[in-house]
Amino acid sequence: MNVNQIPTRTLRPVPGLRAVDIIDQTALPHDYRTLRLHTLDEAAHAIRAMQVRGAPLIGVTAAYGVALALAPHSDDATLAAAVATLAATRPTAVNLHWALARMHSHLAPLHPSERADAAWHEAARIAEEDAAQCRKIGENGLALLRPIAERRGRLNLMTHCNAGWLATVDHGTALSPIYAAFDAGIDVHVWVSETRPRNQGLLTAWELRQHGVPHTVFADNAAGLLLARAGQIDAVIVGADRIAANGDVANKVGTYLKALAARAADVPFYVAAPRSTIDFACASGKEIPIEERDGDELRVLHGRAIGQGSGPVERLRQLPADEAVFNPAFDVTPAQLVSKIITELGVCGADGLR
Amino acid sequence: MNVNQIPTRTLRPVPGLRAVDIIDQTALPHDYRTLRLHTLDEAAHAIRAMQVRGAPLIGVTAAYGVALALAPHSDDATLAAAVATLAATRPTAVNLHWALARMHSHLAPLHPSERADAAWHEAARIAEEDAAQCRKIGENGLALLRPIAERRGRLNLMTHCNAGWLATVDHGTALSPIYAAFDAGIDVHVWVSETRPRNQGLLTAWELRQHGVPHTVFADNAAGLLLARAGQIDAVIVGADRIAANGDVANKVGTYLKALAARAADVPFYVAAPRSTIDFACASGKEIPIEERDGDELRVLHGRAIGQGSGPVERLRQLPADEAVFNPAFDVTPAQLVSKIITELGVCGADGLR
Repeated sequence: MNVNQIPTRTLRPVPGLRAVDIIDQTALPHDYRTLRLHTLDEAAHAIRAMQVRGAPLIGVTAAYGVALALAPHSDDATLAAAVATLAATRPTAVNLHWALARMHSHLAPLHPSERADAAWHEAARIAEEDAAQCRKIGENGLALLRPIAERRGRLNLMTHCNAGWLATVDHGTALSPIYAAFDAGIDVHVWVSETRPRNQGLLTAWELRQHGVPHTVFADNAAGLLLARAGQIDAVIVGADRIAANGDVANKVGTYLKALAARAADVPFYVAAPRSTIDFACASGKEIPIEERDGDELRVLHGRAIGQGSGPVERLRQLPADEAVFNPAFDVTPAQLVSKIITELGVCGADGLR
Repeated sequence: MNVNQIPTRTLRPVPGLRAVDIIDQTALPHDYRTLRLHTLDEAAHAIRAMQVRGAPLIGVTAAYGVALALAPHSDDATLAAAVATLAATRPTAVNLHWALARMHSHLAPLHPSERADAAWHEAARIAEEDAAQCRKIGENGLALLRPIAERRGRLNLMTHCNAGWLATVDHGTALSPIYAAFDAGIDVHVWVSETRPRNQGLLTAWELRQHGVPHTVFADNAAGLLLARAGQIDAVIVGADRIAANGDVANKVGTYLKALAARAADVPFYVAAPRSTIDFACASGKEIPIEERDGDELRVLHGRAIGQGSGPVERLRQLPADEAVFNPAFDVTPAQLVSKIITELGVCGADGLR
């Protein structure tokens, strides 16, 4: 693929068409290809099948999904049905519901003849705000990381899943401070967890490689050893899919284990997310619905290396199709394990949300 | 495959030949096939390439490897070279070194003409002892699990990696009490971690399926969520590759994270291993060498489901060959996270080894 062709906007409306182009993230890191969404159903499918993923990007895609659903004259029922269809795609990320509620409250009072154009404009505003918020998260996170870098002479960070520009409209959440640190000339290295079962860590590795940020991939199981080795990791930084009012954080499954290991090693654990990820209606993590996905995500091709990519596939170790599988997509990290939450508004303790 | 053809001995000398048959565990769970080892180098390769794996089985294979190395008249140098070659295969599992030291101290005083036959006999004794010890571990573990089962009305256990009969000569270590509980009529269900990067959890699932024990596979990342859900897991039980004198436990990478999550949820965390796994010469886990394996183990085929096994491979997500990888095979669980250690001699606290 020609890296120069890769934009750093994950989603863009197509000029002159009622359509949106997205990056098909299920094809990365091997193939960079875009998909054009023309309909509500295509937008809902893109979210459900994780062609777009990452809480902020899911929210923005849903906003555009509403726009795709509305013909020039759409009645209240059409609007409500579009919102309901998109809301049902994925349960955990609150940004989805936040964006849909915003679209609905913006469009519902309008005359049906005005709604379609207004939907495109409001979705674009949400997208632009997301990019600006993520840039600001980078600045606020950098202020937190810079003293560590000055004390240590470099910055060795661990992240989980992908909370980079691919997970947002631009810049990313957890990766935004990392890009900001790299661009500020700080000697930064990122430990990237594979993030089974969907391997979004490989999206993070791909992103970091595009940007030139040094990084090393590891199996999620190795996070404890890495964190327990004194001085190996200066901080862990992750994104979030929903933050409860008490500071409990729902994020990609496996986050909680890394938070436990960080606490045991006295390594700071940071969560970076736009303020729209905080769900003040949700008192604690216990109330956050945890999505369980199809077990087929684990019934994958496992195997040994395939050489330089051209050799035959050797020694596959695949889970038989009839083995029972438990496949939750998220877990909850209790607030007391979270050192700081970084939003576009600033940095605060997990017990200080407001 | 014909399940009836599958023995429950992982290794057996071939009558009338100076050779040993092993199960090629890299082919499981898809293909059940045996390999015949004729030479020292083949034995060393089988250990290094993980055709045999599991600390007890590695020890027994190494013992037979010494026998394979010795011609009817072998001098001291041949014996020493065989021990050195086998000792260099894998650094963490102490059973390897224990078995080699036992073979050496048994054979060295003998006349060269007696050594070859003596080596076959001593290796067989080690193998038989391993099977008997593992059976006893099952009984001792069952005594620990039975009161939990009586209190709860059933037994919901989590295990990591494969510490079943495949990892030993027979019965297994962590799985031996589980088989004993199942055979005693206890309503047992096992949560099986995938165990990236080598996916030995699929060996555990395969074993449990042969035995009819109900089980569910999950990605390692989901262990925290499972343990945090009250009442979901009654105990975690794992094997060990080396236990330091202070009770710190080296085991398959990812064990430590599960131990942290078990402690956070107040779930007992048990380690089952033959007493030969305890290395009294090793004061603490800090002194246990941690093997780092080739990064190619992570540069595997990742991907979506392939339907019922006949469809095309869809949406591969493979780590590019030039991405840097950190691939430790083990981690260390501190003694204070270990509730009990189960050996063939009985059950004790991690602080009570002697």
